[in-house]
Amino acid sequence: MVTKNQIKLVVSLQQKKYRTQHGLFVVEGVKTVGEILNAGLEPFKLFVDEPQKIENFNEIEVVSKSELKQMSSLSNPNGVLGVFYMPKVKKTDTADWTVALDAVRDPGNLGTIIRLCDWFGIKHLICSMDTVDCYNAKVLQATMGSITRVNVVYTDLLDYLKKTSLPIFGTFMNGDTVYHKKIPKAGIMIMGNEANGISEEIKNLVTEKIAIPQFGSKTTESLNVATATAILLNEIRRG
Amino acid sequence: MVTKNQIKLVVSLQQKKYRTQHGLFVVEGVKTVGEILNAGLEPFKLFVDEPQKIENFNEIEVVSKSELKQMSSLSNPNGVLGVFYMPKVKKTDTADWTVALDAVRDPGNLGTIIRLCDWFGIKHLICSMDTVDCYNAKVLQATMGSITRVNVVYTDLLDYLKKTSLPIFGTFMNGDTVYHKKIPKAGIMIMGNEANGISEEIKNLVTEKIAIPQFGSKTTESLNVATATAILLNEIRRG
Repeated sequence: MVTKNQIKLVVSLQQKKYRTQHGLFVVEGVKTVGEILNAGLEPFKLFVDEPQKIENFNEIEVVSKSELKQMSSLSNPNGVLGVFYMPKVKKTDTADWTVALDAVRDPGNLGTIIRLCDWFGIKHLICSMDTVDCYNAKVLQATMGSITRVNVVYTDLLDYLKKTSLPIFGTFMNGDTVYHKKIPKAGIMIMGNEANGISEEIKNLVTEKIAIPQFGSKTTESLNVATATAILLNEIRRG
Repeated sequence: MVTKNQIKLVVSLQQKKYRTQHGLFVVEGVKTVGEILNAGLEPFKLFVDEPQKIENFNEIEVVSKSELKQMSSLSNPNGVLGVFYMPKVKKTDTADWTVALDAVRDPGNLGTIIRLCDWFGIKHLICSMDTVDCYNAKVLQATMGSITRVNVVYTDLLDYLKKTSLPIFGTFMNGDTVYHKKIPKAGIMIMGNEANGISEEIKNLVTEKIAIPQFGSKTTESLNVATATAILLNEIRRG
């Protein structure tokens, strides 16, 4: 039987500070929970509203629909809620490209960017401390399980960039077209905040200012950060 | 003064059938309304909750905050609501690339795709009849005004493709890598439904099956339709 304290714990994990405190995060939905189990992440507890929704697992607890609703962050909980231990953060390497996010705030954008890193085989994603938390429920929903294959590290981005010897790429309106740019084997690609782009402090550390050429009317809004990331990772990998 | 009938009309325009019947659509927010006015679309009526929020326009009506709330589709209306005549659909041309959508259902995806077409100078976007309506409030919000520069045409996509002499490109898991593909000057790029991809009937009309190479784990979910569109339009334009 699920206890009141367990329900309270699960609900508390909707807030970043309790996720960090307990080292736990919540995933909902049979598909995503299944993917995270398959990826080998260690579950703390799984809750289901019918027996046998998830097989081959011991720490499973059948709860009533109303108990699940109390724990869920969704208006229509979908039958399976998993509480997982956060994976250990791995050391980044310098032999390949890394993506770094400077204050990306939208959970959907972060989820899409994690999924893109996974697609393009980018193993490490560095996030500034003011980037949205990757264990936010909306981010997890958008990553479609890619979170288990990309090492997401939150750190002081300015400090991290000051210490690297890798070339640092950033996108600017007046940058050189990325089509004619020689792409090195390894580097850091910085993607900026949705409204303000790359911050002033970090701009000064960018060694290669690039641009994605625009072909339409000059009054067009700049590309969304997730679509720009898609284009740039494709450019890196196509070589 | 705003009449009850006017409020009723504006509210009815939240439904596609009334938008089609009246040839009108609604845009909210000072920035987007301003963009649509600047692009030269003809307004039917503008409602504001304070005088002088939008300048230089005659058909402007100052309403109370509660009247605006009645008309708005937003939980927090932001002061300006414009009702516009839908632009006339223009004839598509065959001298450049066209994007065609086969049952794209998510308003955010359609909005992002319209914005991408604008960025990459794609003038015509063909939508199957079961693609989400481009005058849906959520689509308009995501297009950031690009809707005024891209000609969006809803038509029987199968019939349209049967009649074209242009090469028809579509993305498939087993397609040829787009990096080595010769890209013609003009063609049609088909993007499929979020869950099911390109439908069987339309698949048979595709003349060039392409793929965006994957560099990560083979268990990765396929790319989201909007990020795939970003990568493919970039491939077309970079040549």
